Amino acid sequence: MNVGKVSKRVEQVFPFYVMDIMEKAKALEEQGENVVHMEVGEPDFPTPEPILKAAQGFLEKGDVHYTKAQGLPALRKKIARYYRDEYNVDLSPERIFITPGASGALTVALASLIDAGDEVLTCDPGYPCNNNIVTLFGGQPTSINVGEEHGFQLTGQLIAQAWSKATRGVMMASPSNPTGATVNFDQLQNIVQTITEREGFLISDEIYHGLVYGQRAISALEISDDVFVLNSFSKFFGMTGWRLGWLVVPEYAISAANRLMQNLYISAPTPSQYAALAAFDEDTRVILNQRRDEFEQRRDRLYEGLESLGFVMMAKPQGAFYIYADCRLFTDDSYAFALELLEKAGVATTPGKDFGSSEPARYLRFAYTTSIERIEEGLKRIKTFLAERGS
Amino acid sequence: MNVGKVSKRVEQVFPFYVMDIMEKAKALEEQGENVVHMEVGEPDFPTPEPILKAAQGFLEKGDVHYTKAQGLPALRKKIARYYRDEYNVDLSPERIFITPGASGALTVALASLIDAGDEVLTCDPGYPCNNNIVTLFGGQPTSINVGEEHGFQLTGQLIAQAWSKATRGVMMASPSNPTGATVNFDQLQNIVQTITEREGFLISDEIYHGLVYGQRAISALEISDDVFVLNSFSKFFGMTGWRLGWLVVPEYAISAANRLMQNLYISAPTPSQYAALAAFDEDTRVILNQRRDEFEQRRDRLYEGLESLGFVMMAKPQGAFYIYADCRLFTDDSYAFALELLEKAGVATTPGKDFGSSEPARYLRFAYTTSIERIEEGLKRIKTFLAERGS
Ligand SMILES: Cc1ncc(COP(=O)(O)O)c(C=O)c1O
Ligand SMILES: Cc1ncc(COP(=O)(O)O)c(C=O)c1O
Repeated sequence: MNVGKVSKRVEQVFPFYVMDIMEKAKALEEQGENVVHMEVGEPDFPTPEPILKAAQGFLEKGDVHYTKAQGLPALRKKIARYYRDEYNVDLSPERIFITPGASGALTVALASLIDAGDEVLTCDPGYPCNNNIVTLFGGQPTSINVGEEHGFQLTGQLIAQAWSKATRGVMMASPSNPTGATVNFDQLQNIVQTITEREGFLISDEIYHGLVYGQRAISALEISDDVFVLNSFSKFFGMTGWRLGWLVVPEYAISAANRLMQNLYISAPTPSQYAALAAFDEDTRVILNQRRDEFEQRRDRLYEGLESLGFVMMAKPQGAFYIYADCRLFTDDSYAFALELLEKAGVATTPGKDFGSSEPARYLRFAYTTSIERIEEGLKRIKTFLAERGS
Repeated sequence: MNVGKVSKRVEQVFPFYVMDIMEKAKALEEQGENVVHMEVGEPDFPTPEPILKAAQGFLEKGDVHYTKAQGLPALRKKIARYYRDEYNVDLSPERIFITPGASGALTVALASLIDAGDEVLTCDPGYPCNNNIVTLFGGQPTSINVGEEHGFQLTGQLIAQAWSKATRGVMMASPSNPTGATVNFDQLQNIVQTITEREGFLISDEIYHGLVYGQRAISALEISDDVFVLNSFSKFFGMTGWRLGWLVVPEYAISAANRLMQNLYISAPTPSQYAALAAFDEDTRVILNQRRDEFEQRRDRLYEGLESLGFVMMAKPQGAFYIYADCRLFTDDSYAFALELLEKAGVATTPGKDFGSSEPARYLRFAYTTSIERIEEGLKRIKTFLAERGS
């Protein structure tokens, strides 16, 4: 049948190189080797106890049916309140959609906004799924090089320079994956203004909000009502496996987002939605703040450690749980270097080429999603490896 | 920004009319009225106890992280064994993907297969999301009228007649939503052959397998390895809210499906995957078979009841939990009739126009996802209503 061909669409979707690293790491572990995991893009902590309890309580009755496509009203109300408390933003729950992860939110936002051939500006380095989802919907992702010289973040000026006749909008994340770099209020305002002048859309990925150190994260909703903002229970709330996020849309996109939710997902997972009702409770917050402090300490230790080993460091990242380290003093092929680090030092990292094509071969992403002890162990191993390698 | 416009793509995605019915039913209930729900497309039963227990056991540790994009190997192995036991089909777990519901499976299958402009043949009446997802990916759904004269199912001949130069493949479901109609082995073989001769793809939606009465459901995998088969834990297994399904792909599409899973979903919900590990256990099976018998009794009662009220009945449907009843003796606008039935008789149903455009105004879908007692009550109310209406 069908002469065994997949779509052209999917042929343009690239695999993640970190999957090779993860598979090789697993094979090593199965042979009894010990691997320090600094490639993993999710918190190592279990789900906070109050959230687990809420899920367990919900499951006692066993009535696990579809919810409304838009998500539980009670959860949307809590999220709206969260925007008031955290950002001083007034938001109608009608603009909030509960999605299967931020992944679902990205999909709904893009499907609401782009038609075939529409160009979307994205960041390089940046979260690789952005370009891929644009491609899946027939759009044209154009990556803006937001390299070290730009502090690894977008500016209004970069957007203005990249804007073409086909451009429909911009996707960005602050804090960013893979760099943890953030934008401040003025920078974000400048970005929003630049896009507004061009009648484009902004999709602001705020999934690493909450995991910001020594400052406050700015939401694009503080600046405009006419933006698409997404967030997730995955990272700050420690709920990756629950597959739950949310999307805030402008009024004009509510009906579109509803129809997309119905058709693509029916609804987000019900036990996860009931679990998340406890995500904004005070006792959960205490746990999450402790974890944030722990992440901050890990960041400081890892940053300092990598610097002292001879990695060329960007300014200390203000958020997320990643350090994007420049390994140009050791290699001109960070993917080969990642494989070496794994095989010879037992340290797993993510090669730059998962995040774009602007000098990816210079960078490795280190995730501090493992304990301080393991980070110390990893640094020690890298030190020994570099000494033996003699570079 | 962006002059407040959604994509043309999403403007072609229609809302479900049953949502109006559900909202009106809810409003009536809030006013203290009692509504018999026969519009609901999900089992009324709670999650089977052994599946709930498995979820609760998993949650005790609280480690709820992403799984592999393809899903838990242990669950894929169990599904493979299920194909051997139920269908006598040998299937490598490498061809099985755990998806967020059959909804996710439909999305992955279509994104793997179609490019902009590709035509996909679907069934009218049929599951409305099929056409919408094809549209979302820039494809062209062309509905084949599989009306009463065709027993509400596809045939090889209908496919051959509808096939055009742009056609890439076919989507079908047996048992079907909204009619419960099934195809037998010879019919399915004929369908597969017709498509194979044209080098097209088949996406076989087998979500209502297990809910088949007095016969055995045939999987397209019994006939060919080169088909896309999807199923779900939602219906037979009674797990709608868990958002878990699966997709079986031919060898050549494994890599594509993997990349799509990574980018669109990261992975299916983890607690749901662990819960589903108990779905194939013997004690679960006992419960599910009892429920199937209960559905069969409901079908018989509802079929007989509607017939005696004067609905024009198709042959008794062999599967799913729907009866697609012809109300031409009462109305030439089944949507208006559904509203009347709700407001004057307190019975909620789904109007035909949610399922296509071939004479939808003649039909209502009655779901027997409520108890025999409620079905009796609904029939009584309709009887009184029709008598008073004097039709
Ligand atoms: C920047 C960014 N956006 C979105 C996601 C998707 O996360 P999820 O679907 O778990 O919410 C991720 C996951 O790593 C991410 O790093
Ligand atoms: C024919 C058919 N396919 C697919 C689905 C999607 O179900 P789910 O995503 O819950 O598995 C449904 C739901 O009603 C359906 O009727």
